[in-house]
Amino acid sequence: MAPSAPLKKTTFLLNWYANPYHTPIFVAKKRGFYEEEGIDLAIMETTNPSDVTEIVGSGAADMGLKAMIHILAAKDRGINITSMGALLDEPPTGLIFKASLGITKFTDIVGKRVGYIGHFGKIMIDDLAKQAGLAPDSYTTVRVGMNVTDAIMRGVIDTGIGFTNFQRLELEELTGEPAGMLRIDECNGLGCCCFCSVMFVASDAYFQKNKDTVAAFLRATRRAMDIVIEYPDVAWEDMCIMNPRLRSTKRMVNVEVEVDGKKATARVETGSDVYEKIYQRTLPYFSRTLLNVERDWAKVGDFCKYLHVLENEVDQHTVYSNELVPAMGKASVEPLTPGGVLGLVSQQ
Amino acid sequence: MAPSAPLKKTTFLLNWYANPYHTPIFVAKKRGFYEEEGIDLAIMETTNPSDVTEIVGSGAADMGLKAMIHILAAKDRGINITSMGALLDEPPTGLIFKASLGITKFTDIVGKRVGYIGHFGKIMIDDLAKQAGLAPDSYTTVRVGMNVTDAIMRGVIDTGIGFTNFQRLELEELTGEPAGMLRIDECNGLGCCCFCSVMFVASDAYFQKNKDTVAAFLRATRRAMDIVIEYPDVAWEDMCIMNPRLRSTKRMVNVEVEVDGKKATARVETGSDVYEKIYQRTLPYFSRTLLNVERDWAKVGDFCKYLHVLENEVDQHTVYSNELVPAMGKASVEPLTPGGVLGLVSQQ
Repeated sequence: MAPSAPLKKTTFLLNWYANPYHTPIFVAKKRGFYEEEGIDLAIMETTNPSDVTEIVGSGAADMGLKAMIHILAAKDRGINITSMGALLDEPPTGLIFKASLGITKFTDIVGKRVGYIGHFGKIMIDDLAKQAGLAPDSYTTVRVGMNVTDAIMRGVIDTGIGFTNFQRLELEELTGEPAGMLRIDECNGLGCCCFCSVMFVASDAYFQKNKDTVAAFLRATRRAMDIVIEYPDVAWEDMCIMNPRLRSTKRMVNVEVEVDGKKATARVETGSDVYEKIYQRTLPYFSRTLLNVERDWAKVGDFCKYLHVLENEVDQHTVYSNELVPAMGKASVEPLTPGGVLGLVSQQ
Repeated sequence: MAPSAPLKKTTFLLNWYANPYHTPIFVAKKRGFYEEEGIDLAIMETTNPSDVTEIVGSGAADMGLKAMIHILAAKDRGINITSMGALLDEPPTGLIFKASLGITKFTDIVGKRVGYIGHFGKIMIDDLAKQAGLAPDSYTTVRVGMNVTDAIMRGVIDTGIGFTNFQRLELEELTGEPAGMLRIDECNGLGCCCFCSVMFVASDAYFQKNKDTVAAFLRATRRAMDIVIEYPDVAWEDMCIMNPRLRSTKRMVNVEVEVDGKKATARVETGSDVYEKIYQRTLPYFSRTLLNVERDWAKVGDFCKYLHVLENEVDQHTVYSNELVPAMGKASVEPLTPGGVLGLVSQQ
């Protein structure tokens, strides 16, 4: 594009508040990769993940992020959105709990209050319980949304569904003790938590009418993803400048202590680096290629059929496309970023 | 409305990430006040406050929040949005700095790097410098957006524009020393920081075509505002359940300390309650009536004219309306919430 062409204002709705697993998008924004592609990207956050498919599906937001299973569920409800690429591949999901709770196997939920995010989570828990031969009234389920850590800390639930690279780390931070996790995929023999993969989405209509913009968006995001994977510290500093509330606040402070009846001043560490930890633990789950993974869509489709969570026949192959993902095996000779990932040559 | 009527999906774009000054909106959401009015409110956050007027003005989001001065600026650029009520009245704004920097008057910015949020902030700083007789090259201005605290901590600026009830508290939290502030309104003899008042907005077209929805939204929000003002602790707990990352993490932990060569374990406090502090310091600035304040609009309009920041003649009286704000002096006999603010009677 000509550098003087006007930028196209494009709205993008995240699937939650801006958090470490959104780093590639903010890196691309901060470094001007979207602008270089002619896009003025307005990144919005949702305060209720359940709103996203409807807002993107109606076209009120141009593009966004949503988990695999919800894309199928949207299709089932007549909301037609296309998964045009992947941000996160299968972050492991399961029941998290304070280690002191002593849960070691699924049947240990007997007598416990079990938190779930939404509709599907409850179905998964109840199904696993049935498979394990538990009576339906031998445990209690409580809807807590994404805020499982807070619900455990408030004493509303004993355990609940969270990510190994997110809520489990939050729980460890706040309790100061190790947190355990029973992986839903392991209990179900799925092989991995494909239903939680986080995808780039747009309405079918937007995807069909704006292929140049979608391809440009994915190219810019892929350049940033390369930085996240190869220069994670550089990417994290970008993310913290864009979202300072994620920055580590770890620091040494003076506190008054009493040892053997004697008062003294000691230097101790305070603050939190929980978001930095979440970022580090998320690195393995970022999609390096941004490709929809065929195998995962097949698994999710089969899993939905097994759980009977969809009202209609939904063919999982109709809800995603890799057509506009860069680097699909077509040689371009030119690298995505002149001078390599960080563009060091062009910066000199 | 009949309880069985379908809810109207309505999108609402906050002017920043969900933070303590948005508490009334989340209280209304959590308590089902919007649903009772027939509204399914999807609350979205922006990651770039500069995007909001365009997104709301284009109708991509139905309603949102924006500061007074930006509503006039939008009008000036041909984006027609209406301020249909007030969330925050005049939170004091100014140059914040670590007390150890020794700034006591405006001319102390000589030799300093001064951060500003956007376009208008730079004009205000340069105007004050001119009034104070400072040479334009005797200080440096740096655009830092809303993240002035982080820019000071990173050493990018020495001082910058922030709110007394927000960034000043963040700076105190992170540095452990008092932070000072030179109020822009005082330096300018304005009487108060009207330009920072945060307003409920919609496009003119949305406002005219959806008066029932706007009136319903404002009624529900006003009910929540009453709870914030009269039962601030109850409202804050609602806010933390909706946004757990704002909850205080203050807690006692064991740390190993060495005093006079002797190792011992001491109990010390860690964690942060900075958002709770921000909330407490914001209480005086919440608009109890949600009314647009005529006097403030007049001041902002005059201030914009004085600074020559608008290209066109913009009459500030054309960009706001109190028509749909509840409790405009018309007796309804019925309280907004049966049983009083917390609805205690109906809960029994």
